[in-house]
Amino acid sequence: MTANEIIRTKRDAHHLSKSQIEYFIEEYVAGNIPDYQASALLMAIYFNGMDDQETTYLTNAMANSGNTISLKKFRYDTVDKHSTGGVGDKTTLIVSPIAACLGCKVAKMSGRGLGFTGGTVDKLMSIPNYKISPPIDEFFKIVEKTGVSVIRQSDFVAPADKKLYALRDVTGSVESLPLIASSIMSKKIALGSHSIVLDVKVGSGAFMKSYDDALLLANTMVNIGRNCNRNMAAIITNMNTPLGNAIGNNLEVIEAIKLLKGEYISGLYEECVAIAGLMVAVTKSISLDEAEALVKDSISSGAAYNKFIEWISAQGGDISYIENTDKFEKANICCEVISEKSGYIFSMDTEAIGSIAGTLGAGRKTVDDTVDYTAGIILHKKTGDYVSMGEKLCTLFTNNSDAAKEGKTRYLNALKFADDRPKKHPTIYKIIH
Amino acid sequence: MTANEIIRTKRDAHHLSKSQIEYFIEEYVAGNIPDYQASALLMAIYFNGMDDQETTYLTNAMANSGNTISLKKFRYDTVDKHSTGGVGDKTTLIVSPIAACLGCKVAKMSGRGLGFTGGTVDKLMSIPNYKISPPIDEFFKIVEKTGVSVIRQSDFVAPADKKLYALRDVTGSVESLPLIASSIMSKKIALGSHSIVLDVKVGSGAFMKSYDDALLLANTMVNIGRNCNRNMAAIITNMNTPLGNAIGNNLEVIEAIKLLKGEYISGLYEECVAIAGLMVAVTKSISLDEAEALVKDSISSGAAYNKFIEWISAQGGDISYIENTDKFEKANICCEVISEKSGYIFSMDTEAIGSIAGTLGAGRKTVDDTVDYTAGIILHKKTGDYVSMGEKLCTLFTNNSDAAKEGKTRYLNALKFADDRPKKHPTIYKIIH
Repeated sequence: MTANEIIRTKRDAHHLSKSQIEYFIEEYVAGNIPDYQASALLMAIYFNGMDDQETTYLTNAMANSGNTISLKKFRYDTVDKHSTGGVGDKTTLIVSPIAACLGCKVAKMSGRGLGFTGGTVDKLMSIPNYKISPPIDEFFKIVEKTGVSVIRQSDFVAPADKKLYALRDVTGSVESLPLIASSIMSKKIALGSHSIVLDVKVGSGAFMKSYDDALLLANTMVNIGRNCNRNMAAIITNMNTPLGNAIGNNLEVIEAIKLLKGEYISGLYEECVAIAGLMVAVTKSISLDEAEALVKDSISSGAAYNKFIEWISAQGGDISYIENTDKFEKANICCEVISEKSGYIFSMDTEAIGSIAGTLGAGRKTVDDTVDYTAGIILHKKTGDYVSMGEKLCTLFTNNSDAAKEGKTRYLNALKFADDRPKKHPTIYKIIH
Repeated sequence: MTANEIIRTKRDAHHLSKSQIEYFIEEYVAGNIPDYQASALLMAIYFNGMDDQETTYLTNAMANSGNTISLKKFRYDTVDKHSTGGVGDKTTLIVSPIAACLGCKVAKMSGRGLGFTGGTVDKLMSIPNYKISPPIDEFFKIVEKTGVSVIRQSDFVAPADKKLYALRDVTGSVESLPLIASSIMSKKIALGSHSIVLDVKVGSGAFMKSYDDALLLANTMVNIGRNCNRNMAAIITNMNTPLGNAIGNNLEVIEAIKLLKGEYISGLYEECVAIAGLMVAVTKSISLDEAEALVKDSISSGAAYNKFIEWISAQGGDISYIENTDKFEKANICCEVISEKSGYIFSMDTEAIGSIAGTLGAGRKTVDDTVDYTAGIILHKKTGDYVSMGEKLCTLFTNNSDAAKEGKTRYLNALKFADDRPKKHPTIYKIIH
């Protein structure tokens, strides 16, 4: 078996065997197969694809390339969720305590995002004193005691994925369905939860631009997970507008707290109910309807909010900020974007809005950039809303005056107006359960 | 412009621009673009191909990546020929002096083959004292004086091709028409002859196994050459049997001398007349019929043989070996392969026969292997011949007794017999002129 033979097998559209895939990944991570052979194989996979069996082999090979987390002590109660990423996505902060207060064990490790706006890790770090990287034993203890802990994912999880992703990024093989699916799933499998709920986002603010591509990705990942004996569910959600009204780290934490305190936030509420419902349904083997009713009750009764306080407190976070969100530090510059037109908002270029938030300071371009937790955007009007000329569209928060100025112009360009009210698109396109 | 953008352009089946191709090749040779990006681009080209314009850009970029030879002092008289490689192919030794004695200037540099049987350079080096690497000024002087010189190609010719070929070899992108065509043509363009005749071989002993592939390759290379303002012609020839009856370095030199001395060798004669005819026709702008008549006369009159003597002598070779080929060193082991069947030879696995000759010592597997000039095979019976059980099929020449033993068995397995005389296949399939 040689790397060249394996490349040629896939180039000629043949099926890669388990041993071929394991050999390639092991030797690649060990440095015995060079990058130039890996990039050729990745390009051949880009063109000829892989079936679910091959993709499962690749997922397992990458999952086993580094440290894995055993959550067996929690039996079948563990549940993880993963979002393919969107603008304003603070669902992890909301659904994790909900699932925990309904008997699930959420032992979650989250990667630090390189997107426009921070990842879950950045959002949590905007809560003063929150310990994002406790020792692993402490992580397990918090899960045992409270049912939920979210920490930063170690660099030693699925190093094969890390190495291959960096290579794909510079060799034109990012946009390959089996490579995307196995990259996501390798980390989920390594992190050990028995049930996994996937949130695949589709639209102008998501990696997946078409519903069909999103559906294919969701089904592929569900199949991989099932092949690895995991309990799987997935949801396909709309990312043509930002999720909720807040974008940016501490702004999103504040919005998550509002929702947990019982405030109805359109779109975000429905999505959190569906995701938390799926987490409970798959873990507890109950119907989705039953699970969603429990989820809604946990919000309205305050149980979910109390669990959130319990979790943040167990992880060292200063809960006085949760109890009084006015305590969160604010950006020095806070400027309103005023509409220059009247009419219905027909569409929002959500990727552009995410990028504006990034420029304001909410995200990072390289791993070494620091994030401004106070930076971001609060939306006052969204797609479908009527706006009169002179009304406030949004408020920008930043400590960078140039970014604020540029952000105003870019924000106005990101919106399209229409005279008639546009058709309303659903928040949730499909549930795979 | 980044390497990743260029990879993605070709991955998405778009046309690569001249500046994209030049940038990629220049930066790759300079070491600024890593192998892993080059191998990804090569695999994308494998899948999506390149048109003649892109292939010409690539050819020129590779030709200009190192030293180029200017033959302008010889005006429009210079002619080169190139064979895609076959078993028993000694045509360069024959057609070069023929073309020279008819007024062409053959200033030829030849690569050292890595095939089963030595390349032209190895064949010439089997003539005692032949100087294969004279200083460039001496090369020009020999061409000026005799009209013909063949030397070893410098490593500094088309280094981009050399670097890319080594990469293709280990990353599954050898079998790509535009990459094969540009690889061959980049060296021919760098070596400066105004006219170029290509011999594309097809059959069991050739790289191209199908006529259609060979025709496509020939036409692609002719188009590249014409786009580079070269006078082009090509011939597609049959490589389902070895060319002539001798395989191996000094055995082939002896056969070439026999032909130049006027002996008729079936297949080899017709092919040399056609190739030399094309060389003269394109260089002198006369019809192929007229040129072929001149070529035949040059053989029968002894002019071509005399030119051969003049060339070898000018290049330091010991012409006493040419005048008396019995002087050539012989292999210690010389064993006959005897037919175990009666019948017509229906087919010969020519690649296998070439491989046997290699094992006997005629070729090299790595650049560092040494070649045994005396090793090889003399064929007594070829496809279409009737053989009685007990008759000699061929004689093996070697200094390795294990190889001789193994070679006998392999040779018998390489032949297929039939009761009826097989249909005769032509030596020359097509001429592109």
